[in-house]
Amino acid sequence: MKKLYILDSTLRDGAQGEGISFSVQDKLKIVTALDNLGIDYIEAGNPGSNPKDMDFFALMESRLPKHSKLTAFGSTRRKNIKASDDTNLQSLLKANTPCVTIFGKSWDMHVTNILRASLDENLEMIRDTISFLKTQDKEVIYDAEHFFDGFKANPQYALDTLAAAVESGADSICLCDTNGGAFPDTIYEVTKLVIDKFVIPVGIHTHDDGGMAIANSIMAVKAGATNIQGTLAGFGERCGNANLSAVIGGLQTKAHFECIPTKNLIKLTETVRIIGEIANVTLSSNMPYVGIAAFAHKGGMHVDGVTKDPRSFEHIAPETVGNERRILMSEIAGKSALVEKVRKFLPNIERNSPEASRMVSIVKQMEHEGYQFEGAEGSFELLVLKLAGVYTPHFNIEQLKVIDDQCMDSISHSNPSVDSLSSKAMIKVRVGDQSEITAAEGDGPVNAIDKALRKALEIFFPQIAEIRLADYKVRVLDSQSATAARVRVLIETTDGHDYWTTMGVSTDIIKASSIALIDSIEYKLLKHKN
Amino acid sequence: MKKLYILDSTLRDGAQGEGISFSVQDKLKIVTALDNLGIDYIEAGNPGSNPKDMDFFALMESRLPKHSKLTAFGSTRRKNIKASDDTNLQSLLKANTPCVTIFGKSWDMHVTNILRASLDENLEMIRDTISFLKTQDKEVIYDAEHFFDGFKANPQYALDTLAAAVESGADSICLCDTNGGAFPDTIYEVTKLVIDKFVIPVGIHTHDDGGMAIANSIMAVKAGATNIQGTLAGFGERCGNANLSAVIGGLQTKAHFECIPTKNLIKLTETVRIIGEIANVTLSSNMPYVGIAAFAHKGGMHVDGVTKDPRSFEHIAPETVGNERRILMSEIAGKSALVEKVRKFLPNIERNSPEASRMVSIVKQMEHEGYQFEGAEGSFELLVLKLAGVYTPHFNIEQLKVIDDQCMDSISHSNPSVDSLSSKAMIKVRVGDQSEITAAEGDGPVNAIDKALRKALEIFFPQIAEIRLADYKVRVLDSQSATAARVRVLIETTDGHDYWTTMGVSTDIIKASSIALIDSIEYKLLKHKN
Repeated sequence: MKKLYILDSTLRDGAQGEGISFSVQDKLKIVTALDNLGIDYIEAGNPGSNPKDMDFFALMESRLPKHSKLTAFGSTRRKNIKASDDTNLQSLLKANTPCVTIFGKSWDMHVTNILRASLDENLEMIRDTISFLKTQDKEVIYDAEHFFDGFKANPQYALDTLAAAVESGADSICLCDTNGGAFPDTIYEVTKLVIDKFVIPVGIHTHDDGGMAIANSIMAVKAGATNIQGTLAGFGERCGNANLSAVIGGLQTKAHFECIPTKNLIKLTETVRIIGEIANVTLSSNMPYVGIAAFAHKGGMHVDGVTKDPRSFEHIAPETVGNERRILMSEIAGKSALVEKVRKFLPNIERNSPEASRMVSIVKQMEHEGYQFEGAEGSFELLVLKLAGVYTPHFNIEQLKVIDDQCMDSISHSNPSVDSLSSKAMIKVRVGDQSEITAAEGDGPVNAIDKALRKALEIFFPQIAEIRLADYKVRVLDSQSATAARVRVLIETTDGHDYWTTMGVSTDIIKASSIALIDSIEYKLLKHKN
Repeated sequence: MKKLYILDSTLRDGAQGEGISFSVQDKLKIVTALDNLGIDYIEAGNPGSNPKDMDFFALMESRLPKHSKLTAFGSTRRKNIKASDDTNLQSLLKANTPCVTIFGKSWDMHVTNILRASLDENLEMIRDTISFLKTQDKEVIYDAEHFFDGFKANPQYALDTLAAAVESGADSICLCDTNGGAFPDTIYEVTKLVIDKFVIPVGIHTHDDGGMAIANSIMAVKAGATNIQGTLAGFGERCGNANLSAVIGGLQTKAHFECIPTKNLIKLTETVRIIGEIANVTLSSNMPYVGIAAFAHKGGMHVDGVTKDPRSFEHIAPETVGNERRILMSEIAGKSALVEKVRKFLPNIERNSPEASRMVSIVKQMEHEGYQFEGAEGSFELLVLKLAGVYTPHFNIEQLKVIDDQCMDSISHSNPSVDSLSSKAMIKVRVGDQSEITAAEGDGPVNAIDKALRKALEIFFPQIAEIRLADYKVRVLDSQSATAARVRVLIETTDGHDYWTTMGVSTDIIKASSIALIDSIEYKLLKHKN
C-alpha cells in the first residue's frame, strides 16, 4: 500500500462553515479524535487573523498529539515589508507548531485585483515568506490558492508561483481548487503536469461547490498527488471542503493507498460522528461510508439481494469503516458491534449469551427512541452496568417541580437584556432510608434543577462539590414535530481531572436535562467508588 | 450547446431513500415542478411492485406534462414465462406511459446468485422483454443494472447483455453504477468503450456511495454519454442517487451542454427547494449550486474578496441558477460586511452615515453578548428595521408563566420512558388596545409556550396557523458557567414557501426560546404585510 499524507483542516477551514464555531475545549477534543484516528497533519487555526486561536495553541504545548503533527495556517507576508517584520507571521511562529501552512496567490487576477500587488511582488512575497520560515526550522506546506483557476487564466504565471515556493525551500506544495468549481478531468491533467515538472511532494485541496471535491481529490491522487487536504466531516465555507472520510474510505478500501493506519479504519465512522456531536451539527444520514443511511436498505429487491449476498447492493462491507448495515423497518443490525462495546465494561460477558442479546435489544430500542450512545459513554457505561445488575443507583428523585416566571420587561423582541433568576426548582431526593427536600432558584429551569439537586445531594455525597458542568447540548431529533419534537440533551461534566458525557432523551427539555444531570452525578459517584 | 437528455427518478429511485414517502398528491406536485423546469423524462413509479403507483398513473392520463415524457419502471420478465404473460410487464403497460424503463442484470454474480438463472436465460429474458415492449409501441430505455461491477467481473458477459438489449430494439441503453462505488476514471473508460462499440444513445445512472455520483455522471458525459439519470435533490437509497441539480448546474454553466432549456436554469434552486418541501426533508444547506450556504461567505478574506470581485471566491454567479450570495455575520467578518447586510433591508442608508455606525455598534455589542446573526436572518431583519424606526411589533407579551411537574416514574436513570404532558404555560398578550389571556400544556416548556402563544395570537392573526417550527437548536455559549451559562436558541420556521430563522440569547433557556418564538411570529407577520 502506498502511503498518502492527510491534512485535516476541520479546525481552520472547517470553522468557516456556516453555523460552526468551536470553543477552545471543542478544539482540544477534536484534536484528540483526529489524533486517535491517525491523521498525519492537523491544521488547527489561523493565529494571525484569529487571536482566540493563540489560547488554543498555548494549551496544546503541554499535550502533544501521539501521531498527528500540528500545523498553523497563515498567508504570505504583506507587500512592502520584510517577512521577519510581518505581525501575522510573528503570530504564526508564536503558535509554536512543528509545521506551518502558508497560502499564496497563483491566480493573476487575485494578485492584481484582490491583493493589489504586481505579479513580481507576489512572487517575491512567496519567496521571502518561505525562506524566512525555513530559517525558523519549520516544515512548510505551501498552499497554492486558486491554482486551477489561475492555471486556466495564466498557466505560466501559476507555474511561476509554484517555482518560487519550491526554490525557497517549501517542503511540499498543495494545489488548491479554492472556488470548488473544477472538473475531475481538469484536476487530473493539471496535477499531472505539475508533478512532472517539480521534484517535490504535491498535495491537493478541493472544495465542494461543484459537488465533486471527493472525486477531484481522488483524481489528483491518481495523477500522483501524495498529500490530501480536507475536513473529516466535510465542513467548510459555502459547500464545504473535501469530505476526508469519503476520500479515505475510497482510497483505502478500493485503491491500495494507506491514508490512516489500517487498524484505525474501523474508527472512521465513530470519529466523524464525534466531530459532528462536538460541532453540534446534524450530519447528513446519507454521508458516504459513515452516514447512518450509508448501508440502509429499503427497496424489497435490495433487502432480498443483500440477504442473499451483501455485495449485491453494498460497495464495501460496512464494518470495514466501523459502520453497519441497516434493514429499514426491521432492527436486526449491528449486534456484534454493540456486544463489542458492552464488553468494554463487562469483559466477561459471552458474545452469544442470552444476557448479551437482551442488552443489545434494550440498547437498540433506546436508540430507536433517540438515544445515541456514541459520544455519551458515561450514560452507556451506567446503563450497561445497571442492565447487568452490578450497579444500583445511589439516589432516587421523589419529586421535581419547576416554576418559571418571566419578567416581561426583559422578553423584548430580540434586544439585549439583563437576565434575572426566573426559575425555581423544588426537589425531594431519597438516599437509602433518608430523604431530603429542598429548593433553589436559577438562571433558567436547568440551572435551578442543577442547583437544587446538588444542594440536596451534597449532604449525602460531599464529593459532588468537585464537579461542574462543562458543556450542554440540545439536538432536536424529529423536526417535523415542531416544539413537541423529541430532544436529546448531552451534558459534559468535569471534576477537574476527567470529563464525561451523559445523555437524556425526551420530548420535554426539562426531563431530558434532568435525566442527563442525574446520570452525570451517578457517574461521578461510580468513579469515586472505584 | 450539445443537447443532453435528463431523466429524473425522484418519484421512483428517490422514494427508496430513508424517510421519504410520497402521496399521490405529492407525486402530482413534483411532476409539475419537474415539468416546469424542463426535465425530459420523469420516471414516476414501478407499477409492478407498487400498486399505489397505478392510481397515480391513472390520474396522470388527464393531465399530461407540457414538456416531460413520463416513464414507468420495471424489470425484465421472470424466467420460464413469456414476456406477454408476465404480470409485472402487464402492469407496466397499464401505466400507459409513452416510455418505459426496463432494468436487467449485467453482473454474472447477480444472475446466478440473486436471480438464480443461467447466464443464457438472462440474455433471453432481456431480448424477449424488450422485443415484446417494442411491439406495444413503447420507447424503451434499457437500464443495465450493476454494469460497472459486472464489467469488472466479466467484461464479455456484461457487453453481451447490452448487445441483447440493442439487438432487440431498445431505444437507448443506460449504464448503471448501482452500488455507487465506482471511481471517475473507471466510469470514463468503460463508458467510452461501450460508446465506441454500440450505435445507440448511451446513458449514465450513478449512486453516491463513494461520494462521486455527480463527478461520475459528468465523466460519463465527457466520454460521450448523452442521457443522464438521477434525482434533482439527490434523494435515493443509501447515500442517494446522482444529485441532478449539481450535474445540470455543472454541465450547463461550465461545459456547454444543454440539460434543460437555458431560460429555465434560473428556476433550478427554487425547484429543488419545492421538492424538498413536498418530501418534508430538510435539505443540506451545503448543497452545490442550490443550497442556502452555497454562496455564503464568512472568512474575512473571502468577504473582502467577493466585495472586490465576486469571481474571487465564487465558481459561478449565484443568480445564474436562481440562488443568492450571502455575507455571514461572524466574528471573522468586518464592518463593511455588516453594512452590506443592513443595506439589503434599508437600501437607502449611507455606508458611512452615523445611523449605519450606530447600528453596527449595537449589532457588535449584541454579538459580544452571544447573538450570532449568521444563520438568523429573520431576527437580524427585524432588528435592523426596529433600530431604523420603521417597524413596530404587532404584539406584546404581558405575562408568561410556566409550571413543569415531572412525573417521577419516568425520570429514571437513562431508561426509555413514556412521556406525558408535563408543562403548562399561561400567557397574556396585548395587541393594540385588546388583550387575551390563555394557557396551554405541552411536551416540555417550549412546546407549552409555543402552543399558548399561538392560541392567544391566532385570534388576532389567523395567518399564524400556516407556520410550523422546522428546527430548534441550542448552543451553550460559556460552558464555564455550568447550567447558568448563556444559551443561544435558534428556531427555524416555515410557512410552506419560505424558511426563516430567529434567535434568542439568555441564561434561561425558556426565555431564549420565547424570544426566538416571538421573533418567528413577528417575522411571519412582517412578511405577510409586505
